[in-house]
Amino acid sequence: MTLTPLPDVLVLPLVEAALREDLGRAGDITTDAIVPETLKGRASFVARNPGVIAGLDMARLALHAVDSKLAFAALKRDGDEVAPGDCLATVEGSMRSILTAERVALNFLCHLSGIATETRKLVDAIKTSKAVISCTRKTTPGLRLVEKYAVRSGGGSNHRFGLDDAILIKDNHIAAAGGIRPALERARKAAGHLVKIELEVDTLEQLDEALSLLPEHPLEVVLLDNMPPPMLKQAVSKVAGRLKTEASGNVNLQTVVSIAATGVDIISVGAITHSAPILDIGLDIA
Amino acid sequence: MTLTPLPDVLVLPLVEAALREDLGRAGDITTDAIVPETLKGRASFVARNPGVIAGLDMARLALHAVDSKLAFAALKRDGDEVAPGDCLATVEGSMRSILTAERVALNFLCHLSGIATETRKLVDAIKTSKAVISCTRKTTPGLRLVEKYAVRSGGGSNHRFGLDDAILIKDNHIAAAGGIRPALERARKAAGHLVKIELEVDTLEQLDEALSLLPEHPLEVVLLDNMPPPMLKQAVSKVAGRLKTEASGNVNLQTVVSIAATGVDIISVGAITHSAPILDIGLDIA
Amino acid sequence: MTLTPLPDVLVLPLVEAALREDLGRAGDITTDAIVPETLKGRASFVARNPGVIAGLDMARLALHAVDSKLAFAALKRDGDEVAPGDCLATVEGSMRSILTAERVALNFLCHLSGIATETRKLVDAIKTSKAVISCTRKTTPGLRLVEKYAVRSGGGSNHRFGLDDAILIKDNHIAAAGGIRPALERARKAAGHLVKIELEVDTLEQLDEALSLLPEHPLEVVLLDNMPPPMLKQAVSKVAGRLKTEASGNVNLQTVVSIAATGVDIISVGAITHSAPILDIGLDIA
Amino acid sequence: MTLTPLPDVLVLPLVEAALREDLGRAGDITTDAIVPETLKGRASFVARNPGVIAGLDMARLALHAVDSKLAFAALKRDGDEVAPGDCLATVEGSMRSILTAERVALNFLCHLSGIATETRKLVDAIKTSKAVISCTRKTTPGLRLVEKYAVRSGGGSNHRFGLDDAILIKDNHIAAAGGIRPALERARKAAGHLVKIELEVDTLEQLDEALSLLPEHPLEVVLLDNMPPPMLKQAVSKVAGRLKTEASGNVNLQTVVSIAATGVDIISVGAITHSAPILDIGLDIA
Amino acid sequence: MTLTPLPDVLVLPLVEAALREDLGRAGDITTDAIVPETLKGRASFVARNPGVIAGLDMARLALHAVDSKLAFAALKRDGDEVAPGDCLATVEGSMRSILTAERVALNFLCHLSGIATETRKLVDAIKTSKAVISCTRKTTPGLRLVEKYAVRSGGGSNHRFGLDDAILIKDNHIAAAGGIRPALERARKAAGHLVKIELEVDTLEQLDEALSLLPEHPLEVVLLDNMPPPMLKQAVSKVAGRLKTEASGNVNLQTVVSIAATGVDIISVGAITHSAPILDIGLDIA
Amino acid sequence: MTLTPLPDVLVLPLVEAALREDLGRAGDITTDAIVPETLKGRASFVARNPGVIAGLDMARLALHAVDSKLAFAALKRDGDEVAPGDCLATVEGSMRSILTAERVALNFLCHLSGIATETRKLVDAIKTSKAVISCTRKTTPGLRLVEKYAVRSGGGSNHRFGLDDAILIKDNHIAAAGGIRPALERARKAAGHLVKIELEVDTLEQLDEALSLLPEHPLEVVLLDNMPPPMLKQAVSKVAGRLKTEASGNVNLQTVVSIAATGVDIISVGAITHSAPILDIGLDIA
Repeated sequence: MTLTPLPDVLVLPLVEAALREDLGRAGDITTDAIVPETLKGRASFVARNPGVIAGLDMARLALHAVDSKLAFAALKRDGDEVAPGDCLATVEGSMRSILTAERVALNFLCHLSGIATETRKLVDAIKTSKAVISCTRKTTPGLRLVEKYAVRSGGGSNHRFGLDDAILIKDNHIAAAGGIRPALERARKAAGHLVKIELEVDTLEQLDEALSLLPEHPLEVVLLDNMPPPMLKQAVSKVAGRLKTEASGNVNLQTVVSIAATGVDIISVGAITHSAPILDIGLDIA
Repeated sequence: MTLTPLPDVLVLPLVEAALREDLGRAGDITTDAIVPETLKGRASFVARNPGVIAGLDMARLALHAVDSKLAFAALKRDGDEVAPGDCLATVEGSMRSILTAERVALNFLCHLSGIATETRKLVDAIKTSKAVISCTRKTTPGLRLVEKYAVRSGGGSNHRFGLDDAILIKDNHIAAAGGIRPALERARKAAGHLVKIELEVDTLEQLDEALSLLPEHPLEVVLLDNMPPPMLKQAVSKVAGRLKTEASGNVNLQTVVSIAATGVDIISVGAITHSAPILDIGLDIA
Repeated sequence: MTLTPLPDVLVLPLVEAALREDLGRAGDITTDAIVPETLKGRASFVARNPGVIAGLDMARLALHAVDSKLAFAALKRDGDEVAPGDCLATVEGSMRSILTAERVALNFLCHLSGIATETRKLVDAIKTSKAVISCTRKTTPGLRLVEKYAVRSGGGSNHRFGLDDAILIKDNHIAAAGGIRPALERARKAAGHLVKIELEVDTLEQLDEALSLLPEHPLEVVLLDNMPPPMLKQAVSKVAGRLKTEASGNVNLQTVVSIAATGVDIISVGAITHSAPILDIGLDIA
Repeated sequence: MTLTPLPDVLVLPLVEAALREDLGRAGDITTDAIVPETLKGRASFVARNPGVIAGLDMARLALHAVDSKLAFAALKRDGDEVAPGDCLATVEGSMRSILTAERVALNFLCHLSGIATETRKLVDAIKTSKAVISCTRKTTPGLRLVEKYAVRSGGGSNHRFGLDDAILIKDNHIAAAGGIRPALERARKAAGHLVKIELEVDTLEQLDEALSLLPEHPLEVVLLDNMPPPMLKQAVSKVAGRLKTEASGNVNLQTVVSIAATGVDIISVGAITHSAPILDIGLDIA
Repeated sequence: MTLTPLPDVLVLPLVEAALREDLGRAGDITTDAIVPETLKGRASFVARNPGVIAGLDMARLALHAVDSKLAFAALKRDGDEVAPGDCLATVEGSMRSILTAERVALNFLCHLSGIATETRKLVDAIKTSKAVISCTRKTTPGLRLVEKYAVRSGGGSNHRFGLDDAILIKDNHIAAAGGIRPALERARKAAGHLVKIELEVDTLEQLDEALSLLPEHPLEVVLLDNMPPPMLKQAVSKVAGRLKTEASGNVNLQTVVSIAATGVDIISVGAITHSAPILDIGLDIA
Repeated sequence: MTLTPLPDVLVLPLVEAALREDLGRAGDITTDAIVPETLKGRASFVARNPGVIAGLDMARLALHAVDSKLAFAALKRDGDEVAPGDCLATVEGSMRSILTAERVALNFLCHLSGIATETRKLVDAIKTSKAVISCTRKTTPGLRLVEKYAVRSGGGSNHRFGLDDAILIKDNHIAAAGGIRPALERARKAAGHLVKIELEVDTLEQLDEALSLLPEHPLEVVLLDNMPPPMLKQAVSKVAGRLKTEASGNVNLQTVVSIAATGVDIISVGAITHSAPILDIGLDIA
């Protein structure tokens, strides 16, 4: 999968907000007090644990937002796997600037690399299957843009970016509509021609009902929620390629292989964004 | 410890940004298409796992930013411990509004409760000691304000809020200054009278040097970084109450008891903010 | 088609920015100087020309952003057709507030109603066909959100909301990829499972090529660009229901009936957003 | 008339907001998927219809906000007249960047050039008269700054920029004050010495009253609203050079010559900003 | 002179920014720690020195932005003169909220009342003359809107609000144009019909030149810069009512009476905005 | 004391807001109309009065925000003392750009230099004592960041930056807590280990009580409010070095020497930020 950097015009506001949050109303008073203005230095971003990198651009933007004269050189690219001790990037220039920007640069890099790393583990676990790992909308408030990018860096695929770019009919929608059929009718009527419809079903009976409405009530994806693998397999078999199938619920490194073996197309998992521990990366001053 | 709600004027911009991120350019197209405008409903925020709650105000603000007429009633308070199945709060009103705001409300609540829960585990583990658990500046970019609040909800204490509100002299500062003494001299000269100074030391030799400079070169806290418990104990003994002692590095549920047993005053740990998994909380529609 | 109001949290920033633009650095100096502070009044939004209404919420928000105590009552709903002289809404309260908010309220209401009106003309012209009228990304910078809403108010359908919510492969993409096949391959590989792919073709040969790649290289919509109706008809016949068909180029009230008669599913037209004259609506003070 | 570029500090926020609106939460997913990162290209902004150019700076800023390394060269200047096929500007560099910025750059350029073009038609129609064409406050919300600039590009003059920079006494103000005399008295008392006063009159009787109050109740401009040309001529004759005269209402290409022939100084028309169709400009990839 | 409150939509962003500046990343940690959540209180804004009030609305907005349930009652109005001990307003409700908002409310109120007070001193000193006291663009960055309002509260008049709402030709403009005549020609050609032109002259010779260009090269105001009163008197005599006359330079309580006695229309003074000491106002907790 | 420039990422938003405030909706219409686009010039920032400089960076940022090609050269540094006629900095380039940015650059420079100058006067007056001059939170709303910097430029020290970075227990807190002891208990319990506690006392009795609570109820600073010098001296003697002592109230050039002579460590004064007249600095065009 191609991985394209996010445009600065989208990312820079997040980086600047994070810097303002850290610099407060007086800047880095420790560094300003102690480190001579003219001292130059060189530092390396070094992985402390194995993982997958995401967010090098955000680290670069943080450094340059503090001091545009810093020289930043990336030795790895987002999506690369690293081993402990691997150098990801170097930065040279004013020591004050490097120390002032350090924490914000690392906070982005460690957080996003953590997401990429968790994603990659799942992706690698099922690489002999056709299934893809997808994220959800369970992201950290304000950071969805970059967290979805980190999922892509890990080899995952992205689900909806928000409530507005696809229709996902869940149990409460079905209940409010009075059934699957009216829910699908209303959804199709409201949806533009570039909007896909996904239907969540919890039982095979619901799935049967949805399939029985085809092709008159078209949809593109069926979300098989919280089904154990044998039931998932039955569901995939019933769908028979007419729809994309997505499995969700109870996905982790222990379960993902058997889920993928059911033949589903997409396996979505919230934990890769909402519960990924950071990848430990440090900044070593030379 | 008293736990005071953050003022809305600080928190609301974060909530509104998260809503705009999720609503995108067209709002909740699924709900708008399917759920009747006049349908009313009632929903409960229910814990799926045991943990500590933080962020009920953010959930409330998210709901009210979507629809100010929703009736929100909190049954728990931030800082409360909950068991699976416990109802934290209820919301009543337009079903459309509830479904549209649901994910943003939960994203805040689950993320912050996750931090509170991880914090509480450590706090409880050492409650027979005098040590307090403190967070660091290793927070999610843009959310430091509320993550530090979540740490307080968990019973933890807060470290610096940014680079500007206390002086923390680390190894690179010492190196740049040419030693502990000149670093302390410069720091004290620059610091206002309400700014505390903390010095990070990695060895007992460094600690000895810092102590030997007292009281001529005053400081308030010494950060004992990455020292094993026996060494920590020696350090605490050397300090002999003249300074607050903070331990950091390799802090987790396995190690924290022995660290606390060394007599340090503060145990700081980045993982409670940067690597806390969410607390699973769902919204059950009645 | 259901028409759902946009959430205030998305629209209010646009309204407040427009008010600040108009009020400048001193507010409404004419009204402040001349109209007594305690004078109350009543005013009616009245259509001067026939058309379709969109933007009543924005008018209301503008009035309330100036004075939350104004009483606003809508007599029409967005999407309603009006005749000259029809009263759309009334507002009562401080005369100063009404006069100060008047122009911003009208600027939104007239602009969006103009778009709804132009859309409805095309929609009505082809209502015996199955085709829908769709907008494009040719919108006024900063107002896409509300202009797309105005299109919906007119009975039209929405195309992509931005570059990020669907894939639309145009001639330059095909050229860059070295052909339709590699372009489709790359697009499908990068697209999430909820992202539709549309391919623009200018000739029947291109269409044949795309169709020959089915179903191995799936796509959802084909955009038949700038084809005269007879050629469009041939194209629709070739597609034979396997894809949605969209016609674009040279769409206006003179051509739209014959375009719709070709059997295309969607007719997209930029002019309804980028070149719609306003619907003339005035505010009559009682 | 001299035409001066607007400062970037005023315009860039509009351009960045438009880019964020179009790029959404994932950027240009089509181009990112299909166009190679290293592909370079060259493109030309080409007029498809005759008209007057405005907004080249905004197009440039949009391109550079996406990619500061793009080389942009303007071949025309704002205010220039162009024929179909004329090249206005070229851009060279990363093909991805060009395609990603294309629509936002064109949306500004086409919209503003449309306004300049409509303005110029009226300006040219009356160029043998002394009258100037002026815009109003009937502008697209949020874009007044650049729309007023487009009017200047078309050879027009600008009316008030907002409610705060001149006094314009309309019928409702007169009614609220209880007559022209008290309205003028209050206005003059409140107005700073650099604030002009304009009075709207609908009848010759009102005009007579205003003139009879001179010079005791000074004003600078009289707005003759909705008067047919013969009545306008009478009004101009009555004013006899003591005030600037502005005509408004029912101004279009059919009526403007006879209006200008009445000797009025200013002819103001909302349609050049609120109802101008775009000037069709395309971006041709070489 | 009428004094109209500024619309909240203009002022609230300034108030909220000031609160965020003061509350930082954790709010009022002193009050939160010490004052019980349920404690109610009552406080009075009391003048410590004699002066003129401006900014009561900003104080109210600050209090309500912290806690919308606080009851605020103004006993004075902006523009009122107060004596030491006078109560300007009271606030009742949560003691925590009152203490948290206190400083921001006072910072606005004291700053703006200081400006109103300095203005009033000059206004009162010359009240037997026809001259008015005007401010300049020498305002505190970011606060021009409210500082100009404070000048009005003091009985002063407002000069330009910015570089865009009137033309003021200074020495450097004259030099760049190559003389007064070409400067006036260019200015008039560029100015809209609601834009006044003011010309700064430093000598009587310059004034003579400007007057000799009348009425062919019209202007509205002449700024007599840094002229001693006898020279000012000559200048006023030369102008003979054909233009408004403004005096600037070296204006203070010692000089203003003799300046006003020269017959100038406007006396402008930067010190009332850029160098006014605050009016000391305190918040007394009952 | 070292004086470190504030990071641009903190200051630039203030500068850009000030420019937008001054440029309004049309920019510098005088300069645009009169000064040729190609005219180059050179200008010098020249002190008109003796004082201390602060804000050269803000002046530079204002110039560069208008025109990044202007060449700015500082001849003085913030904190330098200047005599009338001294040149602080020069700028060369487009005359239009220089004139357009002039007022905003000067408004920052004069305002901040005024604060630095007032601070320095007090600092110099007591330089033979050990006391330092400190500011307060009585700053101009929105400008605290740069005003605190100006205080440092003048040789002063900074008090709290906001309500969140230290605890300052005042009379109302003591009253709400029911005494000094419970107030201190609550404060210490809530305070992080890097947060200092300061207690305001108005009488020697209160001071005695606070001292009697040591060391069980530790605090770092005692604020001796509104005590005459003899009483201050007694207070300092009672404290006997156990706490930092801060004097506040009625501090000015007449009183500061005798206050410093009492032996207090810090003398805080609001007037240096809230009531400092500007330092008169002009821009002389060569």
